[in-house]
Parts: sequence; structure tokens; C-alpha cells
Amino acid sequence: MKQITSRENSLYKELKLLATSSQVRRKAGRTLLDGVHLCEAYQQHLGAPELCIVSDAALNDPEVSKLLELCESQHIQCISLPANLYQAISQVEHGVGIMFLVNTPSPALPENISENSVALDGLQDPGNLGSILRSAAAAGIKNVFCSSGTVFAWSPKVMRAGMGAHFLLNIFENIDLEVVLKNASIPVLSTSSHTKTTIYQADLAQPLIWLFGHEGQGVSGSLMALADMTVTIPQQAAIESLNVAASAAICFFEQVRQQSFQ
Amino acid sequence: MKQITSRENSLYKELKLLATSSQVRRKAGRTLLDGVHLCEAYQQHLGAPELCIVSDAALNDPEVSKLLELCESQHIQCISLPANLYQAISQVEHGVGIMFLVNTPSPALPENISENSVALDGLQDPGNLGSILRSAAAAGIKNVFCSSGTVFAWSPKVMRAGMGAHFLLNIFENIDLEVVLKNASIPVLSTSSHTKTTIYQADLAQPLIWLFGHEGQGVSGSLMALADMTVTIPQQAAIESLNVAASAAICFFEQVRQQSFQ
Repeated sequence: MKQITSRENSLYKELKLLATSSQVRRKAGRTLLDGVHLCEAYQQHLGAPELCIVSDAALNDPEVSKLLELCESQHIQCISLPANLYQAISQVEHGVGIMFLVNTPSPALPENISENSVALDGLQDPGNLGSILRSAAAAGIKNVFCSSGTVFAWSPKVMRAGMGAHFLLNIFENIDLEVVLKNASIPVLSTSSHTKTTIYQADLAQPLIWLFGHEGQGVSGSLMALADMTVTIPQQAAIESLNVAASAAICFFEQVRQQSFQ
Repeated sequence: MKQITSRENSLYKELKLLATSSQVRRKAGRTLLDGVHLCEAYQQHLGAPELCIVSDAALNDPEVSKLLELCESQHIQCISLPANLYQAISQVEHGVGIMFLVNTPSPALPENISENSVALDGLQDPGNLGSILRSAAAAGIKNVFCSSGTVFAWSPKVMRAGMGAHFLLNIFENIDLEVVLKNASIPVLSTSSHTKTTIYQADLAQPLIWLFGHEGQGVSGSLMALADMTVTIPQQAAIESLNVAASAAICFFEQVRQQSFQ
């Protein structure tokens, strides 16, 4: 395993840029996975990373050693960094000291969408996106289409909240949702407080595209017009508002119930 | 309306302490509500605040003026601050410039719990707590019991995520959950991946206490032992993990479905 000890090392400088700039990550099509759980999930579902990075301070950690040995046995390039250099590229405050450098998967858009999917229009909060990805993967949804205004899915915050869900989904970013929704051969559903059809009354026992929007403004009017059906989650009159990730979880699992438990 | 222009003003110094220290807020039993939405929700559900604070920069904002007029007509004490002094006590980056100082409600523990409730054991993330409160209020749940290790419910981050749900719920903090759960006359339910009974098969059409725990470690063993039933949200084998706020939303609304839409 190679040791890098200088901040001026060219590979280290590259990692530093990736760690600190969402724009660089998007442009390079690469990102850093921070922590044992994400790295293990990546290996399990997508295979070998480009590079494995460990902190000297973590070399005695049994989980880190195990993962590092696995990487070395697979001839994956591994480097170690002094704790201070490692910390400068880590996004996790009390992380365990192992990271993977990986290429961001960029799947080709399917010609025909026939499997359960989610379309996200301008979603802003990394925690919400991560939670939606996690719920979608847990509910067996396959595709996630993100509009260009939606937060970058492969940022460290979104990946932390996603807990490995990224590796089970086809995530399509910078998508013109109008084109996708117009060409879809399965129904598009959106939640709305202006409809009386509850999710419990709607027929969800079929493949669907769920459409969710911006935390404050919701789905844009032009996309809402492309929904085949609007449904509502019935709520107490005094509040009538759910967090978008909570809404999505409720919808996804009402669909699971109708598809498998009726 | 009184104008405060000096950082040395004693009321301003008191507000600054409340704004910056969770410990001070807990001890004083007071907190600051930031922004038009939270302030309006407070007035609607709980009545008059102790003090209304506006930024000079917001005096021309129609929503702020309206709320300020309402406060003055009700003889609520109002003060204005120069924009820089206001910003130093605001938690919202691009807020609209109005805040209420309020007493944190501290309801007495009910002798007998007979209404839908949630018990939270060591929940850590303010966004998760806010989202759970919002979902609970939307689902018509009345009581929220927080263990002493759970994040403070009246912190600005939790309140922002709660979107006014705080004012519709009885929130009990620093609670010995063992005592509450042992004395409860309605069933206690916890989610677990070690059970085969799904939430769709369990009978939720009755008042319940939902028990959720720490984001990583879940519910402690001693509390789990007090659950009358454990249920599972059926998930794809490859991920089997949901964010705790997403789990709670799914459970609460499956209960809504069973209680009102069957």
C-alpha cells in the first residue's frame, strides 16, 4: 500500500478537489464514498472501486482492516494518509477512516419505462433526497429520474442519508422530466391537496411513476399537467403538510401493500 | 414599538443567549420562533407570544407588517432591531425577519394514556424529530414522549422541520419511557426486523403507542421488552433499512388507513 504524506501530491490534490466541490464531482463523474457501510455496499452491489483510501489512524480498526485486505486481494489500488490529511478530505466528523473513490454510475435512459419509478422535480434538501432513495430501494422501485434543478444525488450528504440505496437504483440526473413523463407507458401519479382521491382508494397495484417536487413549491404546473392521476394522503385539517420524504415513503409503501398484501 | 439599537441592551443580550444556546433555552423554558409561518401557527394554536421581534429590514414586508399589526392590536410587546442585530439572533439564513419569543409549553404527564402516541428513545437528528412531529400531527396523533437522550424538541432546527406541528401536539421531554410504557393502558408497538408480522397484518385500528429509537442503534433492549407487539415494514432484502422518520410516517399512515379507510 502506497503512503502519501504530502499535501502537494497530485493524487491527493485531486482527491481534495473532489471532496470539496460538488461541481468537480459532477464534471469528473466521480465521487468519494465515506465509511465502512457505504464502501461495503458499493462492493457488494457494484464491484471494485477505483481507489481505496485509509487513514493511518484507522489501520487498527478491524472493519477497516478487513475491507482493506479484501481490496488488496482484488488488486485494487490502496493508499494510506496521515490522519490530518485524511480528515481534510473526509465529510464525516467522526468517521471510521476508510473511503472509496468511485466512478458515478450514469445509466442510459431506458427507451420504455415499465418498472416502478420516481421522478423528482427540483428537490432541494440532500437529506430528503437520500431518504427518498432509501425508501424507494426498500420498496423495490427501480428508476429515479432527477430534474436538472434537483440536488446532486452523488454528494456526500445524499449518499450518507441514502445508506447504500444509490447502488440498488438506476439514478438518472439532469433529466428533462417533461420528455420522460410524456413518453412513459405506465401511469404518472402525483400527490396533491386539491384532490379527493386518497392513496388508499387509488389503484396502486400496477407499475407507476411517482412524481414529487420542490420542498416549498411542489411540482411545477407544466409537469403536474402530465400526471395521469393526482392522489392525496388524508391528513388532519389543522396541519395538512408532510415532509416530502415522509410523503414519498407513505406512497411507496401503500403501493407495496396494494401489490403484495391485499 | 420600541427600537433596540445597542448590543449591550439587556433584553437583546437575553435574546442572544436564547438564540445561541440550547442549554439556555431548555433551562429558561423559552424559545424563539423564526419566520412568518411558525409565528402564525403559534398564534393560531397557542395564542399570544411573550414578545414579537422584527428586523428593520422587514418592516415593509406585507406578511411581517400584517403580523406585527395583529400583535400590536393585542397589546403584545414588540421590538425592532437593526438588520445586523436581528441577523445575529436569527437561525434562518434568508429568513423574512420576524420572530416570536415564547414560553415552551410543558404539559403535565397524563395519568392515563388512551390516545394515539409516539415514544422516542434517544432520537438524535433534529430533522428526523421535526419530520416525525409533522407526520404525527398530520396523522392525528396527540402525545409525543421523548426520552432524556432525545434531541431537544424546541430547538430552531426541529421547529423548522416541524412546520408548526409542535403547536398541535403534547410534547413531553426528559421522560422516563420505562415508566410511561409500563403504565400505559393501550398497546405499545415497535418496529423490528426480527418479526414476521407486517404492519399490514397487525391490528392498528385501535389507539396505540408507537415506539421508535436512535437512528443507528434503534430502541434499547429494556424498552423493546415493554412492547406489546413488534411489527415490520416489509422491504426488499438487499436494503432492509429505512430512515426512522420515513418508518414512522409509514406506520402512522397505515394506522390512519386502518382506522378510517377500511
